[in-house]
Amino acid sequence: MPFVTVQIAKGHSIEKKRELAKAITDTLVATMGTKPEWVTVHIDEFERDNWAVGGTLHSDKHKGRHLEKGV
Amino acid sequence: MPFVTVQIAKGHSIEKKRELAKAITDTLVATMGTKPEWVTVHIDEFERDNWAVGGTLHSDKHKGRHLEKGV
Amino acid sequence: MPFVTVQIAKGHSIEKKRELAKAITDTLVATMGTKPEWVTVHIDEFERDNWAVGGTLHSDKHKGRHLEKGV
Amino acid sequence: MPFVTVQIAKGHSIEKKRELAKAITDTLVATMGTKPEWVTVHIDEFERDNWAVGGTLHSDKHKGRHLEKGV
Amino acid sequence: MPFVTVQIAKGHSIEKKRELAKAITDTLVATMGTKPEWVTVHIDEFERDNWAVGGTLHSDKHKGRHLEKGV
Amino acid sequence: MPFVTVQIAKGHSIEKKRELAKAITDTLVATMGTKPEWVTVHIDEFERDNWAVGGTLHSDKHKGRHLEKGV
Repeated sequence: MPFVTVQIAKGHSIEKKRELAKAITDTLVATMGTKPEWVTVHIDEFERDNWAVGGTLHSDKHKGRHLEKGV
Repeated sequence: MPFVTVQIAKGHSIEKKRELAKAITDTLVATMGTKPEWVTVHIDEFERDNWAVGGTLHSDKHKGRHLEKGV
Repeated sequence: MPFVTVQIAKGHSIEKKRELAKAITDTLVATMGTKPEWVTVHIDEFERDNWAVGGTLHSDKHKGRHLEKGV
Repeated sequence: MPFVTVQIAKGHSIEKKRELAKAITDTLVATMGTKPEWVTVHIDEFERDNWAVGGTLHSDKHKGRHLEKGV
Repeated sequence: MPFVTVQIAKGHSIEKKRELAKAITDTLVATMGTKPEWVTVHIDEFERDNWAVGGTLHSDKHKGRHLEKGV
Repeated sequence: MPFVTVQIAKGHSIEKKRELAKAITDTLVATMGTKPEWVTVHIDEFERDNWAVGGTLHSDKHKGRHLEKGV
């Protein structure tokens, strides 16, 4: 009964989330031999002013820029 | 100092949350002998397009249906 | 698909954990109308030197005392 | 690679979050000797009707009052 | 900066964990376009008497059986 | 009622944990104006073969080296 939490920045489309949930599940099935229906995936989105690396908020690092890929 | 996190789908009324927080706390008191004031309950709501079982988003499973009970 | 995490101090018997998992599940069924098989309970035990309230480790607060009830 | 999650009530300004993320990171550097760029801080905000101590929702405890400090 | 937590039952080899961490990271890179060095994976192992589905501890469900695959 | 979870590698002394819990609590008091007794700190230790950045387990990155500082 693997339970996977993916913390990513807010702003991804439902198509992207659909793809992510499917791909993570497939990865668990392929590597751990679990059944797909035993895998739960929780996408836990964070706002960019609620996440900091090196003491700097994400929203301060990327001022004036559009949503980057893969964050 | 038990700390309980309940992850449920978004969309429950404050009356239902009130009832849930009280019932979980009572359960901890009854089973573990803890004092109620030591119990913290965090209701962590998820959007249906952020939760997947078997690789399928919850929002895709229940298209066109109203909020079900108990999810 | 409620997912419940209960953080409690280490040291409870399997009988107590069995009772806790059952009682939490019953509580979710009774209050939220969910089916029991949809409820997952994770008992996440912490060591007393890894938990602090008011800046003092739990293991420092209760030196020389036996395991208390309900913590 | 310390990862710090701070669960606080919703409603703090970005200035306050910026100060918090910086201060937590500095604390990790000062006490653990880690490099700042290895520290991630996640501010995980909760709604007052999703948090209960002693079985009472936070939003029920403070009805009619403005946002208190430090909660 | 995706942060992924995988909760699985205790008892997997380091080779399996290595494979899992690599595969999850590759999945994030492939689906989200993130850089591998931005991805953190935390394997959070649980004991079978700390995990219950349907109110029954995992350790009670599989008495007398060896470690199953993929749980 | 801030609740702070600090995920760090296993292997720190109780003196270091005591210092960390106190310092984090003081930081919350100083920045958020909360009362110390409202702050809970959970030190959530991980094994080095359960944590990966860039797809490589921490235990594989530092083979043959002693416990580094601040990780």
